[in-house]
Amino acid sequence: MIDLKEYIRDIEDFPKEGITFKDITPLLGNASAFAKAATALLELVPDVQIDKVVGIEARGFFFGTLLAEKLGAGFVPVRKPKKLPHTTIAQTYELEYGTDTLEMHVDAISKGDKVLLHDDVLATGGTAAAVIQLIEKAGGAIVQCNFLGEIAFLEGRKKLEGQEVKALFQF
Amino acid sequence: MIDLKEYIRDIEDFPKEGITFKDITPLLGNASAFAKAATALLELVPDVQIDKVVGIEARGFFFGTLLAEKLGAGFVPVRKPKKLPHTTIAQTYELEYGTDTLEMHVDAISKGDKVLLHDDVLATGGTAAAVIQLIEKAGGAIVQCNFLGEIAFLEGRKKLEGQEVKALFQF
Repeated sequence: MIDLKEYIRDIEDFPKEGITFKDITPLLGNASAFAKAATALLELVPDVQIDKVVGIEARGFFFGTLLAEKLGAGFVPVRKPKKLPHTTIAQTYELEYGTDTLEMHVDAISKGDKVLLHDDVLATGGTAAAVIQLIEKAGGAIVQCNFLGEIAFLEGRKKLEGQEVKALFQF
Repeated sequence: MIDLKEYIRDIEDFPKEGITFKDITPLLGNASAFAKAATALLELVPDVQIDKVVGIEARGFFFGTLLAEKLGAGFVPVRKPKKLPHTTIAQTYELEYGTDTLEMHVDAISKGDKVLLHDDVLATGGTAAAVIQLIEKAGGAIVQCNFLGEIAFLEGRKKLEGQEVKALFQF
């Protein structure tokens, strides 16, 4: 039995002082741990037909595309401003200092699409909450907010009220 | 029979005037086309054990992780500067105007690892050539440079001399 958490590396003071970053690259790089994590993430998803998996730039792309392929769904990247080439809808959200914006192609989700939202780590929940707004603007119905890990003390779940939130492990 | 090229959208003057950008998001978003592209990419790969799939930020992550999982390999992201949290090795390369740099974690590839390099589109080949240098610095042996599409008139293959280069389709 592989303990997947052993493949998550703590990096102190990244991206800035006082923050402990959860580095998932050792998990990606180990073939057995990587395959096991993909299977375990899939097992979190309820047994309904998912139309689209939405992954958040950039670490949400790693397992987001895998989940989409295994679920027989399409994949939708949500990206930072000016990265998506076609017409987009945007959502701005608050950070500790200042704001940030995420974009999604205007035609990426159809009204009524059943959507799985995926990102690597749930921290404060600000990013995921912004993506929920994007998906709902487009008329999508969110089935689950799905994360590899969750930093429990940051209480990100509070920002995702009304959603089913699942994470493979807690930090 | 799905024609995958029909799911690639031309965007004129992106990211700057005079450039026609190949937008693969319609292909990602269509569940059947997406699954078919993954299978077809896999069929390009020679029948040898691959240890690591290296995907280039950010569009190389979409199919790179899928290929890694299907090949029973680990996945290694190559990223823009300051995105990777651990110690990195870096490679700078020439652009039309100026230079750009890519980074890889120093411990991502072990000496002798058999490596598949993947990106979405082969254009001038400058980016892929830089990543080849990174992989070889780390002691990896490149089995194939694997692309979804290739913009033939830009002759990117010339920059990848000595490598096996495969693309699912030509533009």
